[in-house]
This record gives sequence, structure tokens and C-alpha cells, in this order.
Amino acid sequence: MFGMTIDRSSDRPVTAQLCDQIRRLIESGGMARGTRLPSTRHLAKELGIARNVAIEAYEQLIAEGYLVGRVGSGTYVAEGIPAIAVPRAVRMSEAGDPDAAGAPKDAAARADVIRFTPGVPDLERFPRWKWARYLKEATEACSFDYGDVRGEESLRVEIAAFLLRSRGMRVDPDRIMITSGSSEGFDLIARTLRPRFGSVFLEDPTIEITGHIFGRAGYRIEPVPVDESGMRVHEIGTFPPDGLMVLTPSHQYPTGCILPVQRRLHALRLAGEAGSFIVEDDYDGDFRLKGVPIPPLCMLGPERVLYAGTFSKTLAPGLRLGFLVLPGDLTGTFAEFRELANLRPPVQPQLALARFIRDGHLDRHIYRMRTVYRNKRTMLIKAIKRHFGDRAVIRGDEAGMHLLVEFPFLDAAPDWSRSEEYGVAVEPVEDYCMRRGSRTRQIVLGYGNIRERDIEPGIERLSRFVRERGTARRTGGTDFPAG
Amino acid sequence: MFGMTIDRSSDRPVTAQLCDQIRRLIESGGMARGTRLPSTRHLAKELGIARNVAIEAYEQLIAEGYLVGRVGSGTYVAEGIPAIAVPRAVRMSEAGDPDAAGAPKDAAARADVIRFTPGVPDLERFPRWKWARYLKEATEACSFDYGDVRGEESLRVEIAAFLLRSRGMRVDPDRIMITSGSSEGFDLIARTLRPRFGSVFLEDPTIEITGHIFGRAGYRIEPVPVDESGMRVHEIGTFPPDGLMVLTPSHQYPTGCILPVQRRLHALRLAGEAGSFIVEDDYDGDFRLKGVPIPPLCMLGPERVLYAGTFSKTLAPGLRLGFLVLPGDLTGTFAEFRELANLRPPVQPQLALARFIRDGHLDRHIYRMRTVYRNKRTMLIKAIKRHFGDRAVIRGDEAGMHLLVEFPFLDAAPDWSRSEEYGVAVEPVEDYCMRRGSRTRQIVLGYGNIRERDIEPGIERLSRFVRERGTARRTGGTDFPAG
Repeated sequence: MFGMTIDRSSDRPVTAQLCDQIRRLIESGGMARGTRLPSTRHLAKELGIARNVAIEAYEQLIAEGYLVGRVGSGTYVAEGIPAIAVPRAVRMSEAGDPDAAGAPKDAAARADVIRFTPGVPDLERFPRWKWARYLKEATEACSFDYGDVRGEESLRVEIAAFLLRSRGMRVDPDRIMITSGSSEGFDLIARTLRPRFGSVFLEDPTIEITGHIFGRAGYRIEPVPVDESGMRVHEIGTFPPDGLMVLTPSHQYPTGCILPVQRRLHALRLAGEAGSFIVEDDYDGDFRLKGVPIPPLCMLGPERVLYAGTFSKTLAPGLRLGFLVLPGDLTGTFAEFRELANLRPPVQPQLALARFIRDGHLDRHIYRMRTVYRNKRTMLIKAIKRHFGDRAVIRGDEAGMHLLVEFPFLDAAPDWSRSEEYGVAVEPVEDYCMRRGSRTRQIVLGYGNIRERDIEPGIERLSRFVRERGTARRTGGTDFPAG
Repeated sequence: MFGMTIDRSSDRPVTAQLCDQIRRLIESGGMARGTRLPSTRHLAKELGIARNVAIEAYEQLIAEGYLVGRVGSGTYVAEGIPAIAVPRAVRMSEAGDPDAAGAPKDAAARADVIRFTPGVPDLERFPRWKWARYLKEATEACSFDYGDVRGEESLRVEIAAFLLRSRGMRVDPDRIMITSGSSEGFDLIARTLRPRFGSVFLEDPTIEITGHIFGRAGYRIEPVPVDESGMRVHEIGTFPPDGLMVLTPSHQYPTGCILPVQRRLHALRLAGEAGSFIVEDDYDGDFRLKGVPIPPLCMLGPERVLYAGTFSKTLAPGLRLGFLVLPGDLTGTFAEFRELANLRPPVQPQLALARFIRDGHLDRHIYRMRTVYRNKRTMLIKAIKRHFGDRAVIRGDEAGMHLLVEFPFLDAAPDWSRSEEYGVAVEPVEDYCMRRGSRTRQIVLGYGNIRERDIEPGIERLSRFVRERGTARRTGGTDFPAG
């Protein structure tokens, strides 16, 4: 009957199968408008199904407008449905077969590349069993309703206490807003402040993400050069009232330098005079490896600074947990922005993290990891010195989990992306530059997630790459030291 | 010495305390520029601390620019730090004391208000123990690095299989993108398509969130009236090439009606002719209570429809998990949008959900909840009929977890927000209207998260409120039936 069949081996309920087929017949023109359908009794008998299944299917299709019932007369195909070519068979190659998607073809060849990836902490040392337990316990006890748009209060309270312990920073938990990593924090800042602000002063070089986020939100990007003391804030001149500024004062990325207090105060003065704000990205302030964490810029001017923190570096990026500390008079605006669009972070990981911090595990993990990173850094610096001698200048090594290496002896810098052919991956600083050309001899080496045993062979490969692919300056005189 | 003291009972390390105090002295003008600091030996002795602690503090402050070291001469306060009034003592009332934030004063009075909140599923029946276990197991086995910007593949594969089972919808997992609830999905759509699109046609009434999201992204909002068959699509006339349209075809919110196939095809034709797109919000398509789930609009025109699904209704809003199904040629654009801004969902809940679905728990939960909601709906309708007789008209009761009640006998509609004084909270439909004034006699009753035992007393309170606060039409003649 109209070619309808029931597939009893299918997962799909019989009623649904019936509806599918009648719809398709109507849509394809196989059943024209006004066509009378068989009675439910007849259809049920024909297909060997219960009559109420047929009734249910007809009622469903009447509700959807495909069919009309006429009292005492039967069921008909409705008017106004032109036959259409329905593209039902969308490509489905990978469904149910996760392998089919496939890895890049050269994955095998690349598997043993040693990667000095910056911005990723030691993931093998992440306390996954503990975190799993905390997550389970929080989930067993938490609400599953929409959470607080600002983030769960218990976590905001723990973050406030942590900021006081670790940085001497006193913050009202009501000024904290939990975000999905610091990226969402920047995104939130860019969008919430957009009506009033239209340009943003960024460190050059800096992480590309920041520029993308502000650029996409419609901001004009104003790059300010970075020297060995961070952003050359004093070169800004007049700061426009619609201008924001983004700084990484504790540990500039990628150069690794620290913004001295004179420049901090200058930046605050600019923002204060313009009635504007500074966004402080304290992405790895917990991993100062000499001395103690540097007090955030935020402490010098809490009403002019939006402070962005993240647990991507202290714990793991996969958690997607970060936070903002906002000036008091902006907290309402930010909460409203989120509330109106119903954007808020998931509840359970927040409650898990609150308990995790309260029980001292964050502090302990940071303490432990500081030693781990200090050791990795020492090994890395030793390896660089062994293979490059004094021909490589190391910068920005006081904090975090990356350092910058400059090769001043190079004339034409090699195409750094080709180092993978030598089995080692590094990041050229030029990739972070808005004004290109002046940092071609610099690379960033991230050592957060590298295994200790890979450091020495990684640098050995790098030295081979630089020797074979880099061109030394003619005027220099000294030869490249033997590997 | 300069009034510095060490608090040995404090959590804060001694070095940090020392740095804090020296900084404050400099910032407050207590130590002027050029002031020579005591030798580290002297300071250590004075304060009863180890000398290396003093050295560490001085080195730290030199790195920060507060101090300068002169070889063979000592350590001095640096130049260029004007004395500033530092507002260190930000309000800290609630830190460590979650109770201090306080609930609204009338919380006690409101505690027994019966709330017919729409859009929230039965949270008491959410399988929290099971979910907690899945989350733990996924966390023990997963990566903690940044995940796939599109969402984890295993979850995308399971969602594709679920859509096929539940809706007969064939979708390539590569066209799926995991979002933080459907709100983030809308936000992503509004922003990613913004350069090309500038206006959006919305159902009137509809949920306010959609309008806020598109409005904030700079779209012009074009409200289209909704009648008992959903959006009056045929009234749109010409659809501009920069126009998008948002539809809730399976179950309009808040009226609860179903968009018939004729209007669906008309909408698709408009979008096809304009080269534009329709956003399909299938927020509660799994809870059709008569018959089977209605096939999504998406199936009629997969290349013209962006389908938004969510687990907020089938599981719980607190999970913040939803997804988009995108036309094939948009997937790259959406992934790039997220990649550049480093916006992506957390990994662990996605992996937990993938396994949860794979093991059949989502299907089983939906199946169970359908019975629960069907029963609650029956109880609710009975209660409405008992207390209002035929003076209340019930609409949109075929699906989901809310229904619409109209009181045509009312002349002046009461101020619905005041029903809380009678111990019952309902949502006026007017709150969802862009063009106000025509739906003052309609309310939405959500029954997803209400307890069964509260239904009858809730409606009893509502009838008392309507009787005492509503004004019946003079011309009607019939009296309000006795409660």
C-alpha cells in the first residue's frame, strides 16, 4: 500500500516509521493533495500492526498539517504542500564510526616530534583521580537548575580567599565573575563594554586570541611595542576616552618580561584621566619561579582594572574555568549582559573546584608544580647553553612555563615551522607580532607540558635545525659552535 | 624599622608579607625615592627572619621596579613612583562567610509559593547518582588539554545517532557543534553570521532571550505575529537577503502550537529565495506527549536550517549542554569563529554525556519523563477544569512541559505578578510579547519541575487570585464559578 513497509529490526518506533513514510510520500508527490488515505483498520491489517498505531500516526500527521480528517468521510492529504525534492540522505559517513574521521595522514610521521608548546601546563601531573572524585561528590549534592550568572557563590568566595593568600589581593566575592577560561572573560569584556569603548591598546607582540576577540567585537586595534620591560606605555601619548588597554604585567606573553611599577602607574594614570579601563591578564601569575607572585596591577587601581584569571595554567585548560575581578560599578552591567542572553557556566565543575580549593588542593598543586617547572626550566636552560653556548640569548625566564630564545648571530632566520622536519616544534615570536619583521630571530619555548626526558633531545634537534637551516651573519666572525 | 612587622599566624608567606609592607610604604610616600633600605642582614635580624627571606624580598621588589640595587652601595627606593592613595581595603564583607550575602528579606514569606515555572524540567527526577558516576569515569580517562572547538567527537557521534533514533534525522557528526545550552548556540549563530545578516524575523510572542541575543549582536528585530498555528509566515511578504528567521516549529513558546507543514515549506521557500537561513529552536521536541516527536524543519531543508538542540530540557539546565546542527557549508565558518577566540566547551561533561547516551540512559530518561509529564499535565488540566470550569481555555497542551491558559471572561486582566501574594507564581504571556496588549488574559503554566502534590493547591490559589483580583466582563452574564 503506497509502498509502505515496517522494518521490525529498526530502533525507530513503528508509529514513527509510518509517519516518516507518509510524509515522504506527500513531500515527494507520491500522494497528491486530496488523496484519500486507507482507513486505519485497513492499513493496520495490511502492515500487520496494531490499529492504534495507525490511528496515532494519522493524528500526528493531522497535527502537523500533512493530513486532514473529514468527519464521517475519512483522512485526506492536505492542500498546499507542493512536491519538493527532499534531500534526506545527507552524508553520514562517520556516524557510529569514530575512526572514519581519521587523523591527519602524516600523524604517524609526526608522532615523535618534540613539542615545546607554550601555554599548556603539565597535564600528566594534573591530579585527575582527585578531581574526578571532587566532581562526583559535587554532582551528587548540587542543584541542576540554571546557576548564578556570576558563577556559584561558594567558588567566588574560595577564589577571593585564594587571591588574598597568594597575592595579598583583597576582593569582594561579589566582584568576581566565573568564566569559561580567560578567553570567555575577554570576550565578555569586549562585548559588554563595546557600546562605550571602541579601541583597544594591545602589547605587540601578544597572544593572537586577544586581538581576534576585540577585533571581532568591532574595536580598533592599537599595537604598542614591547621592550625588555613590557609595553612602552609612555609612548601612548594621549589615551582616548573610548580606549581600553590590555596588559600582561606579571609576565608578558611571549617575551616573558615584567612591567615595572613606573609603567604600571603610568598606565593607571592614563586610564584614570580618560575614565577608561585596563584589562589585566594574569594568565600565569602563580608560577613566578623566582620570589613570590607579583602583586597584580589591579591592586594599585581596583576601580580602573578588570583582572582576568584562569585555572587553565594552574590546573588544566580542559576544565575551561577562569574568572574576572571587576570594578564594583561594572559588576551589575556584566551580570545583566549574561542574564539577558542566558549565558552562564555549568554548575557542577564550579562546586567541585570550590571544594578542591577549600581543601587546599589548589595551593598544594601550585606549590608542587612550581618545583616541577623550576626543574624543567633549569634543564632547558642547561640544554640551550650546551648546544648553543653564548650564541643564544635567553629572556623572560623568571616566571611561568615558557621562555624566549633569541639567536642574534643569525642573519636570515630560518622558516621556523620547518623545524618539525627535524623532529622539534617551536613557536616563532613573529607569529605573535602585529608589526612584523623585527623578531624573526626569536622563538618561544614552552616547557609546561614537555616531558623531562624530551628536553635535551628536543634542544639537540633544534640546534641541528638552526645549524643546517639558519644563515649566520657574515660580519659576526665566530662560527656556530659544534653540537 | 619603618613599622614593618611579621604576622606569624598568617597564611601568607613571610617574603610576601615583607614585600607587601615595603610596597605600601613606597606607594604611600612612607619611603621616599632614593631612601636607602636597611641591609638584608640588619633587616633579618630586626624582624627575626632568615636572611635569605630578606634577600628574596629585595630581589622581588627590584624586579618589580620598586627598588634599585647599586653595586657596593646598597638598595634604594626607585625613582618615578609618586605617592598615591591606594584603596587597598575593598569591601570584603562576604569573603569566607557565604551567609552574609543573605537571601532576599521576604524569602521566608515566599518559601511556600507554588511556582509554575516554565522551561525547567523535573530536577528531582534527574538521575544525579548515575550522572555523577559517568562524570567521574569520564574524568578519570579523559585528556585535560583544550578540546575540539566543535565539541568532542564521541559526543557528536552519539548525538547524530540519537537524532536518527528519535526523529529519523540523518546528520553527519561533522555538522554538529556542541554548545553551552542552546543560548550559546544562538549567540554563536548571531555573531558568526553577523557580517552577512542584519535583521531577524522572530515569532511574537517568543522567549525574550532570543531577541536580546540578536539585538545585542546588532540585528534589526522584525516581530511576526503568532496565531494558533504558529508564526504567520505568509505575512512576511518579501524576505530580505540579509534576513534570518527563528522558529520553534515543534512546539511554539509560549503558545505551545505546532507549525503546520504548509507554513514550514513557505518559510523554507522564503529562505531559499533569499539565500538566507532559518534557525530552528527544537527546545523540547523530545516531549511531545501525543504521538511521536515531530520531524524537525531541518529535515525538509538541511541546507537552509540551523538546528538548535539542548539537553537543558531532556536532562537539566545546570549541565549547560546543547548543540547545533549546521548546514554543511557553514561548519568551517563556525569552527573558525570559535578557534580564533579560543572559545570551546569543557571536555569532561561532553565525554560523560557521550557514554551516558551510548549506554541508553538518555533514551530511557526521556521515556520515563514523558510519562511523568503526561501525568502532571493530566493533573494540571483536571485542576484547571475543576476550579475554572469552561471559563479557562487551555491551549498548546500536546507537547513539552508547559501549557497556556486563557481567561476570556476577564475584562481587565489582573496584575499577574501579584499572584505571589496568593502563594502562586505564573508567567503572563504579555511578558513574551514584542507588541503588547493583546494577550493580557493569557498565562503560561510550566509543570516540568512542579511537584505533583502542589498542582491542585497551586491552581486553587490561582483561582482565588483571579476571582479576587480579576474583573469579569460586564457583558458576559455568567458568574465566576465557585472555587
